[in-house]
This record gives sequence, C-alpha cells and structure tokens, in this order.
Amino acid sequence: MGKNLTKRAEDYSKWYNELVVQADLAENSGVRGCMVIKPYGFAIWEKMQAELDRMFKETGHQNAYFPLFIPKSYLSKEADHVEGFAKECAVVTHYRLKNAEDGSGVVVDPDAKLEEELIVRPTSETIIWDTYRRWIQSYRDLPLLVNQWANVVRWEMRTRLFLRTAEFLWQEGHTAHATEKEAIAEAEQMMHVYAEFAENFMGVPVIKGLKTESERFAGALETYCIEALMQDGKALQAGTSHFLGQNFAKAFDVKFANKEGKQDFVWATSWGVSTRLMGALIMTHSDDQGLVLPPKLAPIQVVIVPIYKGEEQLEAISQKVEPIIKDLRAKGISVKYDNRDTHKPGFKFNEYELKGVPIRIALGKRDMENNTLEIARRDTQTKETIKAEEVVEHIEKLLEEIQENLYKKAWDYRASHITSVDNFEDFKKVLDEKGGFVSAHWDGTAETEDRIKDLTKATIRCIPLDSVAEEGQCVFTGAPSSRRVLFAKAY
Amino acid sequence: MGKNLTKRAEDYSKWYNELVVQADLAENSGVRGCMVIKPYGFAIWEKMQAELDRMFKETGHQNAYFPLFIPKSYLSKEADHVEGFAKECAVVTHYRLKNAEDGSGVVVDPDAKLEEELIVRPTSETIIWDTYRRWIQSYRDLPLLVNQWANVVRWEMRTRLFLRTAEFLWQEGHTAHATEKEAIAEAEQMMHVYAEFAENFMGVPVIKGLKTESERFAGALETYCIEALMQDGKALQAGTSHFLGQNFAKAFDVKFANKEGKQDFVWATSWGVSTRLMGALIMTHSDDQGLVLPPKLAPIQVVIVPIYKGEEQLEAISQKVEPIIKDLRAKGISVKYDNRDTHKPGFKFNEYELKGVPIRIALGKRDMENNTLEIARRDTQTKETIKAEEVVEHIEKLLEEIQENLYKKAWDYRASHITSVDNFEDFKKVLDEKGGFVSAHWDGTAETEDRIKDLTKATIRCIPLDSVAEEGQCVFTGAPSSRRVLFAKAY
Repeated sequence: MGKNLTKRAEDYSKWYNELVVQADLAENSGVRGCMVIKPYGFAIWEKMQAELDRMFKETGHQNAYFPLFIPKSYLSKEADHVEGFAKECAVVTHYRLKNAEDGSGVVVDPDAKLEEELIVRPTSETIIWDTYRRWIQSYRDLPLLVNQWANVVRWEMRTRLFLRTAEFLWQEGHTAHATEKEAIAEAEQMMHVYAEFAENFMGVPVIKGLKTESERFAGALETYCIEALMQDGKALQAGTSHFLGQNFAKAFDVKFANKEGKQDFVWATSWGVSTRLMGALIMTHSDDQGLVLPPKLAPIQVVIVPIYKGEEQLEAISQKVEPIIKDLRAKGISVKYDNRDTHKPGFKFNEYELKGVPIRIALGKRDMENNTLEIARRDTQTKETIKAEEVVEHIEKLLEEIQENLYKKAWDYRASHITSVDNFEDFKKVLDEKGGFVSAHWDGTAETEDRIKDLTKATIRCIPLDSVAEEGQCVFTGAPSSRRVLFAKAY
Repeated sequence: MGKNLTKRAEDYSKWYNELVVQADLAENSGVRGCMVIKPYGFAIWEKMQAELDRMFKETGHQNAYFPLFIPKSYLSKEADHVEGFAKECAVVTHYRLKNAEDGSGVVVDPDAKLEEELIVRPTSETIIWDTYRRWIQSYRDLPLLVNQWANVVRWEMRTRLFLRTAEFLWQEGHTAHATEKEAIAEAEQMMHVYAEFAENFMGVPVIKGLKTESERFAGALETYCIEALMQDGKALQAGTSHFLGQNFAKAFDVKFANKEGKQDFVWATSWGVSTRLMGALIMTHSDDQGLVLPPKLAPIQVVIVPIYKGEEQLEAISQKVEPIIKDLRAKGISVKYDNRDTHKPGFKFNEYELKGVPIRIALGKRDMENNTLEIARRDTQTKETIKAEEVVEHIEKLLEEIQENLYKKAWDYRASHITSVDNFEDFKKVLDEKGGFVSAHWDGTAETEDRIKDLTKATIRCIPLDSVAEEGQCVFTGAPSSRRVLFAKAY
C-alpha cells in the first residue's frame, strides 16, 4: 500500500480526488463524466440506502419504479422545469445500430430514428405526474407517498467523483396530497428526515433552511434544504425537499374529487438525496492519512491484524481471536480478520487507515503472553492496550464514542465557521481568509444575490429555519432587511 | 373492487395482462415498451432482491456500480457480443436540447452532437471489462467477484409487462478468475444459487441445464440456465449464468501475472436474473381469482378484516386483534389490519384475493362471542375456524404449509408435463395438444434445431444437467443421438 496522499492544507481538491481513488471508493470510467463506484465505496452507499429506506418506510412511503426515459414533450409541459433541465440532458434519438458498409464496425442505423426523442431522466417529476393522472381520482387515493431509487443523468461539463457526475445514483420521493398544508408538511418532514440521517448516521451537522427564489428547484414554489460545511470552508448542499404547489398537477392534469365531490388539482412535493452524500461524508471527516468513517456507515467497523512470525504463532493468535470475532459479530459489529500472509502488518495498518476503518485491533507475541490487545482508533489516531476479556464491551462503547466524537468535531468546526458580518469589506475578508458560512443581511432581491455571486463566488446557501427576526441593512446595498441569511462558496 | 378477470382457460395471455394491472403490480407507461412498477409489485421485487443479494454475498460477491452508458466502440470489441446486442439498443447521440426558434417547444440542439454515440447498456460486459483491466494485475487480485443491480435497455418490438420490456431491472454478476476451472465452477455455482432461490423462495421448480450453441449468450462459451414451466404449458427461462472463457479478457486486454510471474488472460463469467422473475412468479401460482403469492415473497402475509356494525363493535374487535398483531409481528410475520370504514368486508375479501395475500383472518360478532377466528387460505381457497389463542402458532405453520403446497402443486404440474417422444408426429402432437416440455433425441446440429423451430415454434430449452446417456435417434432427422434434450414453446 504505497500511500502517497496530498495534504489537505497543500491542495484540498487534489487531496479529495486522490483519496476517493486510493481508498477504493470510486474512479472515472471510459465514459465522460460517468464514474465507477467500486465495491468498498458501494458498500458505504448501500449502508446509507438501507438507513434512508428504513426512514422513508417508517414515514409511510413505498418504493416504486418509473421509466428511465422521458418523452421530450413531457419535459416541456412545465415551463420552469424544462428551462432548468433541457440544457444538460442525454438525448436518445435512435434505437438500432447496424454494421458499417465499409466494415469499420457499427454505426447508427438512420432508418431507426425515433419519432419523438427520449430524454434520459435528469429527475422524474414529469414521467411520474403523467402516471399519477391514472392513479389519482379521489381523496381516497391521497396522500400518495412514493419513493424511487434510481440513476439519473445530467450532462455536467465539469465533473468530480461523487460531487458532480453526469450519471449519479439517488432516491427521489414524489408525493401527492389533497391540501396545500399537507404538502408543505410533507416537504418539511422530509427535510427533517434528511437532517436526522446526516447528523445521526453520517455524523455531518447540517443547517436546515429555505432556498432563495433563484436557487430553487426548477418548478418548485419552495425548496427546503440541508447545508453542510466541508473542511475547506466550502458549503455542500446535502439534500433538498421541494414544495411543488399545483404546478405539476396542472401541467399533467391531475385532479381529484374531494369529500364534497368537487374536483381540484393535487398538491405535490418531491425530495432527493444522491451519491453526492458520499462526497459530504468523505470531506467532513477524513484527514491527511486517508478516509475516516463514522462507525454507523463503515462496511468494516473493526479490523483485527495478527502480528506473528511463523505458522505456529499465527495459529495461536487465530485461536485466540476466534471467540472474540464471534462475540463481536453477535453484537452486530462487522469484523474483518486479516490473516493474509502476503502482506506485512505495517502494510495492513496503512491500508485500513487509508480506508477509514474505525477501530483496529492488533495482537502479537507479547499480547498473547499478557492476555492483552492493542486497540487503535482511526479518528484520534490514539492507541491503548486492554485486557482481552474486556474487548467486546470496550469496542461497543468505543464505536459509539467515535460516532459521537466525529459529529462533535465537525460541529465544532462548523460552529467556529459561521461568521456574522455587517459590511461588505468584512464579508469579502471572511470569505477570502476564513471561509465557512457568512451570516449577513440581504435585501431580498435576486439582483443583489447575483451581484454578490459575481463579485465573490458566494451564494446564499439558505435562509435558516431557525434564524431570528432582526432589523438590519443589506450587506451590499444597505437596503432594509429583517433577518440574516447564510452565504458561502459552495460545491 | 370490481374484479373482472378473464379466465385462464379462455385466454391465458389476456388473463396475465389483466392480472398484472388489476393486482397493482405494474402498468404500461407513456414511453413505448417501458413499464411502471407499482408499489405493490415493487414490494415483491424488493423481497426478491433482498434474498438474492443475501445469497450473492454469502457466496463472496460484492456489489458495485458501473456506467449506464457504453461507448459505441466498446460494444464492437467482442464480435459475437456486438452481433447479439447492436440490433436492439437505445442510442444517445446528443447532450442538449434548446428552445425551438418557432417557439413550439424544445428541440435537439444540433451543436450538441456527441463525437462518439453512447449506447444505453443492454448488459455491461464491455464497460465492466474495460474497468477490470485497471483492477487486475496479479493473481492476488483474483478472483474478482462483483455484482451490480441496475436497469438495462433492449429495444424489443413486442413487449409484455415483466416478461419482455424495453427497460427492465436486473442484477448482473461479473467475475474474473485465474483459471478456466474456477470460472466454470463459478458459473455453475450461480446457476445453483438461482435454482435454490426459484424453488425455495418463489416456489417455482426449475430444470437446470445447458443452452445449445444457438441459444447461448452473445460472447459466451457456455450458458447455464434454469427453465420453469408456466400453467399454459410454455417454458420460461428464469435465469442464466455464462462461462465467457477468455473472450472479454482478450477483447479488453485484461491480463494477470500468475504465481510464477507469467502473464495470462483472465477467465470470466457473467450471470443475471431480472424483473422477468416477476412474470414467472405470477404465472406459476395465480388462478382465475387473481394473484397467488408464496408467503416468503408476499409483502403482506396475513390480512385481518373486521366484520362489524358500528363503532362499538369495531372498537371491541380492534382491541381483540391488537395483541394478535403484535405477537405475529414479533415472529417476523407481516400483518395488515384493514379497518377502513370506507369499504365493506366483501370488497376487502375480493381485493386481498386479487392481490394474493396468503392468509386472511376475519372476525365478527359471533367470533367475538366464541373467542374464534376465521382463517382463509388463498392457495386452496379453504376456510377454517380456530380458537383465538391458537392463532400465532397456527399461522406460523400455515405459512410454511402454503409455501410448500405451492411448490408441490407447481412441481406436480411440471412432472405431468414432461413428455418423452420418439418420433416427430408425437412431438408435434404433444406440443399442440398438451404443451409442456418434450423430451426428445436431437442430432446436435443447429440446422435441425432451426428447422424444428420453424415448423413447431418449439426451441431447445436446455440440455438438462441430470439427463442420462441414452442411445437414440434424432426425432427429426433420425441421425444418432446420445442423450435427450428438452424442447418447448417458450416466453
């Protein structure tokens, strides 16, 4: 394991790119902008999926599956929506290849041109609302609470593994309600579900808020979001939940008969998180030695490395650890015993450090004599020696402690990186020198928002839900403002 | 629930199409050949996925994810492969839409033409082997045992829900090995895994065998398969596992250094099952009243329907069943208590019959007085009254019994529909009048196979693994043959 990772302080972006590849999480493929998610990276994503899926089902949602392709005409039915998505989509125009006449390989068969082009879904509102028209007739059919796990494609020009890729994996919830109030409550609920997942499982503290009009989802009346802060001081939008009003119901003519028998358009939400969460997870906790994973999402929570000379010592160690492994697994802890004889312990230590395994147990000749084990924590890089009989209880507690410590560390970092400023000089200074969220007054206009973005690259990440009313003046125009919003440079 | 299902004997194909829609499993979408899998149907697929995924992991496989798109040139690298898949693929030629100049909507932007067309994956051998070249250097990297859950697209002209759709969901395993022997063992192992799943979970008996050369996967040296028999006497290929030799390793230049340091091409397998299994499940067990589901894959295993007049009776019944529901759930049994006051019991009975819920419990005023419950089995349509305190134990046993009974019923049907014939007159007669598998001698040539197919529509489903050596004469040409093969008309 020739670990050779750029330091974060040196080049954060390079560190990230190298880490994703070296820790076996993902890599670029031969297809522009599309990534390969490697088994170790995918195992983390599977753990995220399982947890989110459980939370969705607990809140009454069911999974379903809708077509990958969207007829071009569907996309056009909601005006804002097509404006937002037509610019970056993969278009299927033909349905057959044929042998080239000159024998050079296969070419597109011009006779197999589609009458109407199909778009590879960038998001599924249109195809789903076209379906909901058939599913919804009466208030008895509502609420309709559906989620889909799927791949989507947005033709991004600049891509980065997990953070921005042409194809990515995600879930998209699409719900239909009888009333505006219910739909808003649903959109808010899912924002809270996302926040709970980010904080309790990923160990990533997030700020819940509302997007400004210019940052809203194309077709939404309101976009709720959770915003996280990375170690380089840049924000990352980790999940969004949209209140869509009756826009899609009107575009696709989805009406229902209410209890009084009157016809009305249905109210909608949609909400999603994607493999982008992998990027947030990696960048929040990892260090110059490699990946750092919170125990709740680590595919391997504990690795055991024997330190031995010769078959006999290995055999003795293996016998010693066998019941320990069994006991740990009985507690639901995932353990790997790495007894490969093709690699030295130092190589293995490096490998599991790079891959972010939360706890490493090592034992050698002296430990065997003393009935002890060496326990190393990935997060703090500290080691301690414990009695072998205490190991199961110790590991159980330690996993919880690591989970909490990672969250606390990230929370402390973020807390020290929310800076209130009251004039534009300070605004720029904080962005340039310190980074993080800048809490400032804003006059509420898209024009000011745009100007600030042009000048500083910072955008309004959100209007925090917990922001308090406070009279003030816009940091840029001086116009009156009634609450602070959070600006940041962002991924 | 206005149930109005065509009878199987009347029109089997119509019965199937109606059943899939009426039981809320799937429906056609606005996109030609692409289906929407509805929540109830998807819940069954999720149960299949969970079980298969567990079996794949137990046999050492890990999940990963590869790009949706395949560059056209990749597809051409393996000659047989491109021949098999180029004719039915969705081709992405552009990456942007723009507003039409006449204001009529959006059109493909001619400036956004891709240099090389991308194919929506019909299967992923080519993109995966292009990746494996980077992952495999030495024997230490082998075996590489990877599975992917994904959507794939094959542009079929005639589509049927679950059985043949342009887009479908599947899993595809792709493994790399150091030796031919290991790769063959892997391909065989996965065929056995599929058979075990089909028989133990789906309750669908299958015949394991080898495909003839003309029925093999495009690019495979050997295709193993499991073949099931539907109630209309037609066979359905339920899963395939391919030994690919070194074809893809050679096409994508994937070599490894063996223990002696010598370079050699890697040996490969691939294997897959798809949402087609849903079709097999539905057609094997269901009847003229609707869906019949084996308990192990039923999203709802037990439904409880209260029969009451007025709030007070409902309240009493609800109190009575509450601890029963709790006890059943504690045993891992999924229970739905349908206390909707918007529908009558008769309507509910119909609905759960149509949806194939294995066990229905009903209780009314008299049951309350007698401390009894009425238990109805979906598979046999029989009812019995039991003491309330026996219910948990009874249901547990009954679920097992239903699972076994469905398998046995399907097994008996199949056993009575494998017919040995020794001349072509009988061959045609059995196919026409009885259906099912016809066990016959075949001279081993593709020509004879083709002729028989042209004349009878029957294909060789497989050369069964358990077929015994037997001297005979080809049923069509009279040429010598050393074992029987199975013919059938097939889905």
